[in-house]
Amino acid sequence: MKRSINRWLFAVLCILQFTAFAQPRGPFTNSPQVHEDKTVTFEYLAPNAQKVLLSGQFLTGGPVEMKKGEQGIWRTTVGPIAPDMYPYNFEVDGVGVMDPGNVNYFPNERFKGSILLVPGNQPRMYEMRNVPHGSVNYEYYPSLENSTGYLVVYTPPGYDASPDKSFPVFYLISGTTDTEETFYKVGNVNWILDNLIAEGLAKPMIVVMPYGNVAARIAEQNGKPKPEDPARESEASNARMKQLENDLIKNIIPYIESNYRAIKKRESRAIGGFSRGGGQTLRAAYGNLDTFGSICCYSASASPKDMDNDFSYIGKNPEQTNAQLKLNWVSVGNSDFMYPSTVEYMNYLNAHNIKYQGLITSGGHTWMNVKKFMIESLQLLFK
Amino acid sequence: MKRSINRWLFAVLCILQFTAFAQPRGPFTNSPQVHEDKTVTFEYLAPNAQKVLLSGQFLTGGPVEMKKGEQGIWRTTVGPIAPDMYPYNFEVDGVGVMDPGNVNYFPNERFKGSILLVPGNQPRMYEMRNVPHGSVNYEYYPSLENSTGYLVVYTPPGYDASPDKSFPVFYLISGTTDTEETFYKVGNVNWILDNLIAEGLAKPMIVVMPYGNVAARIAEQNGKPKPEDPARESEASNARMKQLENDLIKNIIPYIESNYRAIKKRESRAIGGFSRGGGQTLRAAYGNLDTFGSICCYSASASPKDMDNDFSYIGKNPEQTNAQLKLNWVSVGNSDFMYPSTVEYMNYLNAHNIKYQGLITSGGHTWMNVKKFMIESLQLLFK
Repeated sequence: MKRSINRWLFAVLCILQFTAFAQPRGPFTNSPQVHEDKTVTFEYLAPNAQKVLLSGQFLTGGPVEMKKGEQGIWRTTVGPIAPDMYPYNFEVDGVGVMDPGNVNYFPNERFKGSILLVPGNQPRMYEMRNVPHGSVNYEYYPSLENSTGYLVVYTPPGYDASPDKSFPVFYLISGTTDTEETFYKVGNVNWILDNLIAEGLAKPMIVVMPYGNVAARIAEQNGKPKPEDPARESEASNARMKQLENDLIKNIIPYIESNYRAIKKRESRAIGGFSRGGGQTLRAAYGNLDTFGSICCYSASASPKDMDNDFSYIGKNPEQTNAQLKLNWVSVGNSDFMYPSTVEYMNYLNAHNIKYQGLITSGGHTWMNVKKFMIESLQLLFK
Repeated sequence: MKRSINRWLFAVLCILQFTAFAQPRGPFTNSPQVHEDKTVTFEYLAPNAQKVLLSGQFLTGGPVEMKKGEQGIWRTTVGPIAPDMYPYNFEVDGVGVMDPGNVNYFPNERFKGSILLVPGNQPRMYEMRNVPHGSVNYEYYPSLENSTGYLVVYTPPGYDASPDKSFPVFYLISGTTDTEETFYKVGNVNWILDNLIAEGLAKPMIVVMPYGNVAARIAEQNGKPKPEDPARESEASNARMKQLENDLIKNIIPYIESNYRAIKKRESRAIGGFSRGGGQTLRAAYGNLDTFGSICCYSASASPKDMDNDFSYIGKNPEQTNAQLKLNWVSVGNSDFMYPSTVEYMNYLNAHNIKYQGLITSGGHTWMNVKKFMIESLQLLFK
């Protein structure tokens, strides 16, 4: 059977060709394998490694040593693991690497992680369910310093089918070292909104996810090395913290409002973010209350000093601020390193009679918590 | 300066927190660095590795040994490298890993690679230029066996601005182990079309990129291990080769034509693919000439035996076939493992008076060639 031989050759040669740059020549690992009982088996091919650890945010006791088996495949089975979506990777002789058996990756400037989904017996709010799905659009817009900016834009189910309808917009800012893809690929904001909307729990909305590290993108497009993350301390860095705010007001919002059916009113614009993106959110929101009507601050804060120095009018006019902000959301995990400064921020809001809503969860500075924060706060937006 | 301290703490603690799963605790590498003279420096942090190789399709002599320097950072500088976009990775004690310093990755089921862009002095046709940009949409559609399918959909510049205009559609199928993202993230089909359209060289079109390994997606959604790639020989495998064709006709095309402004005529539908996706393309096209009016076969072929067994009417009615196919494109590199079978396929077309156009390049089964094939063939579609 020449046909068979062709097919067979074809497949084998494909594998060989793809090894034109270093690939495992097999055996292929099947990782992660989530079992009925919610235990999970991980495999990593590393015939020559001295030590391979599994490292994941589901491992409360820290990294777990994997055992080397036949054909140089390291294995471990852990759990049962509580249903959630967790970042993890392998530490191969001290170096963190993705799981080659897993296509679900953590988009990030610095580290390489993979994503484990331990499904609920019923799919959780952040899992893909059999409901109408929105779409997620990768957009390119004219940005600062003649650079081209990147946006990931979620449009809700029915957006295309209802060309006369306009929607409110939630601007959602990535955290330190995350990219414009992270809220989509790790936060599952699209599944969360598809599911909330299907249950009538959230308003259909557009979500716009920029890349928070504007300076790094500009440097990259000019073939220059990336500057340090703008969260770091320096005058230049503080200026960079402000770049995203400038880009939002000058470029991103006008681009979205001329290319999407966005409601062009402050009450229909919300801004939120995680970690450094949450800090950028607070600065952009309090600095532009004429533009934004709602705030979602996830695992971030502004210091009383920042509030007094830069946004004194907020505390001085609580009635006006409360009238302007349809939602002022603050959330953090009680073991998050941002917990103390977030409590300090909430105390500042209390002391100045600024109304807010929020959620204090257990856990740390994790995407498990960010998903919880989104599931709660997205139900409150634009209502 | 409490403010400074907060900022500083904030940044440092972010890094610490993100190391909740194994991350380089710094020093951070700056990799790849493309220098003025087109030489490129690669860095990889691996303090405990015995041997680190740089492996890339720009290395004609095979992998290059990197040298361990201070702080456990391995380095090498290679080139000058001819302007192009190349997959590469590091081989750390025999294991292929991505470049943690690089956010541009190769989406794939099996291996983890990064993408190096060596820009032209003038940006090449596959590079981002300062022209109007289309957008790239991630869509979810109801697929076979009650599964949810994934599509990446390119819409041309001006698509949203011209709501009364409809566009032809190019269905573009991923190759062995590639995903629905690969033609976008590695093929840069969006930049190629943005640039061709800006220069009046290509018709504005929609490009629909499905995931070619339907069985693997269905298995994944049922929590089962992925079956072998359908390119492998077996009855079950042949049936799986046909799954994408069924999904295209039953689900994907109807989904696109009800959710996008697609011209619903066979002359305005083209199908193309690379490697296994090219094989699926030929079967789907020759099996559904009432649906498709153009074919783009990149580094793939159908054997004379397949053509005679399954599509004898093609060779028997050359005038009709030639009248039905506005474009029948065949291209391959002359050192591609598919070169002999592609020549055999072209000989079959010649022997049966089936008209075709194409490109035989130097080089192998690479994405450098796929980009060339797209740049040429996209200029011929729908004209």
